[in-house]
Amino acid sequence: MAHIELTEGLPGIRALFAFRPETAKPLCELAEILLHTPGTLSMADRELIATYVSSRNDCYYCQTSHGALAAYHLNGDEALVQDVKHDPETAAVSDKLRALLAIAGKVQHSGLDVRAEDVERARGLGASEREVHDTVLIAAAFCMYNRYVDGLATWAPSDPAAYRERAAQVGANGYLGIPAAVAAKARS
Amino acid sequence: MAHIELTEGLPGIRALFAFRPETAKPLCELAEILLHTPGTLSMADRELIATYVSSRNDCYYCQTSHGALAAYHLNGDEALVQDVKHDPETAAVSDKLRALLAIAGKVQHSGLDVRAEDVERARGLGASEREVHDTVLIAAAFCMYNRYVDGLATWAPSDPAAYRERAAQVGANGYLGIPAAVAAKARS
Repeated sequence: MAHIELTEGLPGIRALFAFRPETAKPLCELAEILLHTPGTLSMADRELIATYVSSRNDCYYCQTSHGALAAYHLNGDEALVQDVKHDPETAAVSDKLRALLAIAGKVQHSGLDVRAEDVERARGLGASEREVHDTVLIAAAFCMYNRYVDGLATWAPSDPAAYRERAAQVGANGYLGIPAAVAAKARS
Repeated sequence: MAHIELTEGLPGIRALFAFRPETAKPLCELAEILLHTPGTLSMADRELIATYVSSRNDCYYCQTSHGALAAYHLNGDEALVQDVKHDPETAAVSDKLRALLAIAGKVQHSGLDVRAEDVERARGLGASEREVHDTVLIAAAFCMYNRYVDGLATWAPSDPAAYRERAAQVGANGYLGIPAAVAAKARS
């Protein structure tokens, strides 16, 4: 049971968006800019960073929903998502993404853990200033989303099909429509 | 030296807002709603929660800037801010705020640490559903801001007067004007 009174049937952060629409708006705008707007890092890469951090924070809802989004952008390659969660250093991703995932893993524990050589490694493998910035902010933001979802003990569906279905919607349309969708569901 | 190329002379998160104005907007809107819009928790209480979490994350810039903001809203009582950072259970705050700070302290470590009895304690001392929600989200959000500021190794001024001066501006005007202010400074 959630720690506060939430609309039943809305999973994870969606129930919190319905509870507090004011904060839902900037939280979804931030996710949209970091994960879904065109950029030099692919949407798959950015969702993998989000999934990896959520996995390290042991947040079931976020790692499963963003893992499904990463797989959506990877043409359904759920095995690669699992490999990244297990160990980015041995997963079949680009060297640049591997170095960015290493930075994200440090940020997950503490921003103070990131060393100049971690950033040098990523830069040497082709990462731009913007890509390093966005990796740190994606990792930091998921340390927020994960704590928000679990700190209020929201409900997470156990059926993988539910995550795949929502991932197809968000993967195609992005995050900005979510507050209106959950508000409509909460009223129904 | 910061891990990426930032405008010199802009402290902490302000340099990151100038680097990436797109994300500055939702990040400042979130801070405005959580910390500065009218609510049943005073601005002092909310800045104390932000300061306490930032202190536990060992983020010098955030604990000092939001500590100065808490003191601004407390008519300059910097000693109380230090007491809260040191130990909320013995600080001279309301019983309700003490229970909310205990929740925030758990969220700082992991959302999964929050127990139903932590929320029951706060509720028994008068906390509303909204106040519990906002406490968890403030604590979670500062786990993001702290990692963002330290993960990119931003510069933090050491002179307390600089923090008091900015706190007087933000305390009076809120967070929404910050992105435009830092953009103007970065251009100058």
